[in-house]
Formats: sequence, C-alpha cells, structure tokens
Amino acid sequence: MVTTWPPGFPVLQEGAERFAANIRAMSNGRLEIKVYAGGELIPALQVFEAVSQGTVEMGHGSAYYWAGKVPEAQFFSTVPFGMTALGMNSWLYDGGGLELWREVYKPFHVIPFPLGNTGVQMGGWFNKEINSVDDLQGLKMRIPGLGGKVLAKAGGNPVLLAGSEVYSALERNTIDATEWIGPYHDERLGLYRAAEHYYYPGWHEPGTVLELTVNERAWNSLPPDLQAIVANAAQAENLAMLAEMEHKNAEALQILKARDDITIAPFPDDVLQRLKALSDETLVEEAEKNPKFKRVFDAYQAFRQKDADWSQISERTYLNLEPAQ
Amino acid sequence: MVTTWPPGFPVLQEGAERFAANIRAMSNGRLEIKVYAGGELIPALQVFEAVSQGTVEMGHGSAYYWAGKVPEAQFFSTVPFGMTALGMNSWLYDGGGLELWREVYKPFHVIPFPLGNTGVQMGGWFNKEINSVDDLQGLKMRIPGLGGKVLAKAGGNPVLLAGSEVYSALERNTIDATEWIGPYHDERLGLYRAAEHYYYPGWHEPGTVLELTVNERAWNSLPPDLQAIVANAAQAENLAMLAEMEHKNAEALQILKARDDITIAPFPDDVLQRLKALSDETLVEEAEKNPKFKRVFDAYQAFRQKDADWSQISERTYLNLEPAQ
Repeated sequence: MVTTWPPGFPVLQEGAERFAANIRAMSNGRLEIKVYAGGELIPALQVFEAVSQGTVEMGHGSAYYWAGKVPEAQFFSTVPFGMTALGMNSWLYDGGGLELWREVYKPFHVIPFPLGNTGVQMGGWFNKEINSVDDLQGLKMRIPGLGGKVLAKAGGNPVLLAGSEVYSALERNTIDATEWIGPYHDERLGLYRAAEHYYYPGWHEPGTVLELTVNERAWNSLPPDLQAIVANAAQAENLAMLAEMEHKNAEALQILKARDDITIAPFPDDVLQRLKALSDETLVEEAEKNPKFKRVFDAYQAFRQKDADWSQISERTYLNLEPAQ
Repeated sequence: MVTTWPPGFPVLQEGAERFAANIRAMSNGRLEIKVYAGGELIPALQVFEAVSQGTVEMGHGSAYYWAGKVPEAQFFSTVPFGMTALGMNSWLYDGGGLELWREVYKPFHVIPFPLGNTGVQMGGWFNKEINSVDDLQGLKMRIPGLGGKVLAKAGGNPVLLAGSEVYSALERNTIDATEWIGPYHDERLGLYRAAEHYYYPGWHEPGTVLELTVNERAWNSLPPDLQAIVANAAQAENLAMLAEMEHKNAEALQILKARDDITIAPFPDDVLQRLKALSDETLVEEAEKNPKFKRVFDAYQAFRQKDADWSQISERTYLNLEPAQ
C-alpha cells in the first residue's frame, strides 16, 4: 500500500498503518500489508495510477487528488460547501454513494472504500484581516482544486504548492494566505508563526473523505474472508480517524486560543455567501462541460438536499443550543 | 447474543444481525453468533445481567437501560444536553472514554464496545402546542431515565411505558406526549396518527450510543484474531448504524413534512434553556449522591468542554451557513 502522506504524518499515515496492523491481527498474519508513505515507493500524486496499473495493490489518499484524470471523483472526497462527515458517510454507506463511486473507478480497475475523514477543516491562515470580499482581490493563497477555482472567481490568485513548501512560502510572504487542515495539523506545522489571522470555517473542505483504493485483480485474488476483513477494517478505521481528528483538533484549538499573537475568527457572512454563490456556479459550469461530472453531481445534490433538511432540525438546532464562547 | 430490541426492529436489530454476519464472513464461519431479539431468550431489560452472569455471551442494547444498577453508565449512552455522535465517538475512541467504560463494567465481568448511534433524536410527539414552560406543567409524557427526571423538575409528569404500549397510550390520551427516536422509527410506529405536534430537537438524547457487551470469560476464550475481528466489526457497525439512521431519518422527514395534519417545530428557546438548566442541576445532584457517577461525570465534562469549543467553530459555524428552510 502506498499513500499520499509524508512519512509519519499524524492521524492520516498513522491511521493507514493502524489499518494494516488491524488486518494483520484479524487475519492472523495471512494478509500482511506493507505501508509506504508518499514518495517512498511512488510519488504521492501517482498513487491512483499505480493502483490502477497494478504496480502496487493498495493506495491511501483522497479522491480529489485525481481530479485531472477523474473530475467527478471530487464528490467522493469533498467539494466547496458540500456535506460534512456525517452526511458523506450516510450517502456513501446507505444512500448509494459508494456504489456510484465503484462505478466511477471501475474503468480504472480500482475498487474504492472510504477510509478516514478530516471533519470540518479550517479556512486557513492569512497575513491580513479579511473584512469583505474586496480583501480577496489579488490575494495569493495556497488553495488547490475546486476551492482554488472559487477563489479565482472571487478575484483571488490561487497558488499550487506542495505541503512541504507551505510554511516557508507563507513565512516569506511569497503567498498571502494558505489553507491547510485543522488546528492540530496547522499547529504542528507552526503556521501560527507565519501569519496572524486564522479564519473558519473551511468552506472549501467541510468533511474530506480519505480513500482506500484496491487494485481489482488484487481484490479478486483474495478469498471472501480476507475481503470481508479488508472491508470491515476500512470502515472501522474510517471512524477511528474522524474520532481522532475531532479530539486532536479540540486540544490544539485550546493551545492556539491561548496565544495572544494570533486572532481566530469566522469569515464575514458576506464573504461566505459570495464564496458559496461562486462555488455553486463553479460546480454547475463543471457539470455543463462534463456529463460524467454531472451524473455524480446530480446524485450528490439529490441526497444532499434531503440530508440538509434533516441536518438543520437535528445537528444544527442542537449545536446552536450551546452558548457562544 | 441477546438484544434489547423487538424482533426485526429496523436499523438496531438489523444492525446487530449484520454485525454477526460480518463476523461470520471474516472468521470464515469459525465464530458464529446467534442473535436473539429482546424477549426471545432473555427479557430486554435483563440483557446486561445475563451477559454479566454468563447466561449469554454477548448483548446489544444501550448503557442507560442499566441505570438502576450502574447509574454512571448513562454517560456511555447519552445524557440530556450531552454530546452528539461525533463528540461521543471522539471521547470513546480517542479521549479515554472507552477505557473508563471498561473500568466501570469490569466488576460485572462485562467488556463494552460502542456499536451504533441513533444520532440526534427528536423531542417527541405532543397532543398540544408547547409555547412556554407553563405548558409542561402536569404534562404526562412517556420519557424514561434522566430526561424524565428533568421533565419532573420542570413540573411535568414522566410516565414509564414499554415501547409496545406507546402508540396506544398516546392515541387514547392516557399520556399527553411521548418521545421515541427520530423521524424514521416514529413514522413507522404511526405516531403522527396519535398526536399532531412534533417537536425538535431531542434535548434528552442528542447522540445515543448503542453498546455491545461481551462476557469477560467468553472474551478471554477467544484467540487474538477472533478478538480483533469482533472489535473491528463492532467499530465498523457503529458507523454503519449511524449512517443508516441519518439517511432513513432524512427520508422519513420528507414524508412527515408532506403531511398537513401535523406541525413540525422547534421547542421555544426559553423551554430549552429551562430544560438545560434543570438537566445541569440533575446531573450535579446525581454526582453529589454518588462518587462513581461523579468520576465519570467529571471526565465527560472535561472532554465535553474542549469538544464544544471546537464543535462551535467547525460543525456549528458550517451548518449555520445553510439557509433556513
């Protein structure tokens, strides 16, 4: 198994290794998975291709990394203003999402499984206050994928940078802003030393699903009991990573809140409403260009509308009972 | 395995049976679990005792059913105005909650695992509008456990009724109101025919954790690979039930919203604030009476405060971006 994460990357690479250890334990050593971090065997962004061609048997990453090859796969990781972890798991496991995902990857001889979720991410670190949509004009921000397209529509300047370059680019003002993950990973990367304004929420990644990809031939070579073991281990670890992200983010937030050299604030409402309108526009444009994208978009939206109704009277109403800090 | 659910009970009994089927598949038939519904072998409310004594090897239910025997166990199912599913999973899997739960059940020779979650429940069905705290005075409502104690403090009259009696009691006005689960189970039970006011949110059960209980001797008799299989199957099914509840509730809500003979509304703010104050008071009183209860309460609260801070700037802020219906 090859992953898209740096060696020892907290929660994500660690989770991939725990998944392998659980499979070893359940199979009493009959199925031994060797886990390689990004770049150790295969460059991070070639994981899907390597699994597809059978160079390796398994991969761990997230579907939006292959947006150039499979644009519609982005719905199986996250899209701007999309569903949170609960909605995504509900869609994937019970609402037809996983079956659709399998169809989408079928031509590549790859079988996907959800394996981890970051939860709602943070909006990112900015070297100036964002008080209105005007403050996004010309803003050089590290933000990949659909989020970057939306920022460009809003007048910003999205920049592609590998994770390893993010800190120094922000610290040297080569960029004005960057998104990363959430309080835990952001604190570990020291981003609070490179910019002083920390905004929420992560509108561009509200519940990023991580994926296990299995080469079809490797999958078919497994007896049914080992297939069941892999599927259950993936589902168990999907929840384990989300639970760990939530806890580690909660702890790191306390550390960041104690610093008096940064501010932690929500984006202004009108900025979020503008980004939301532009996100909707971006998805519709992509769908008009690409029938495969449209098919997954339509399925996602149909599920999402029902889920949003329920989410509002359940999770949202309940969370709003908590007094503001 | 004996459960606390009626035969064929959707999601919960079905999930217990899927859990057993997954274990059969993963172990290639080496571990065969026979699942009995509540009352088939053991009365529903004697499941814990039966697992503890070794009459059966496994149980499925929820920890608050044993509140009479182990009051502090309620924190491992749900408490009024407590954590939602995400917070509970985070506490249990990564924040020390599960270790504490194991300590609490240790004297009973029972090993617990989270196995399912209902998500945020609904507040219930009422035969009159609830416009203020005054409307709770003398209200005869089926609501068990801590929720019932809170209602009593608010001037209401909590009534204990088995699930099988709920519908007819409400329909015949023997009771004025009842809580049940969420739109899916409530719709199936036909409660919309017995009362016309459907309130949210389920302040008394914001994220009820279901539990697998395993007799300690039975657990110790399993080789490590089968122990790993049981643990992973429980964790995978924990997520599966939550995902299914979310989807089925979303679908059932659409059905209920289409009815013009019921109203679906939030409890008034002052009612919720009053119930919250009384819930806090109830938990503090229980803690003063019982050091074991206090120990778990303190651990729960410490985790919960951190988690609420993070939840507010992540899930809550994000969910509030969705326009109101």
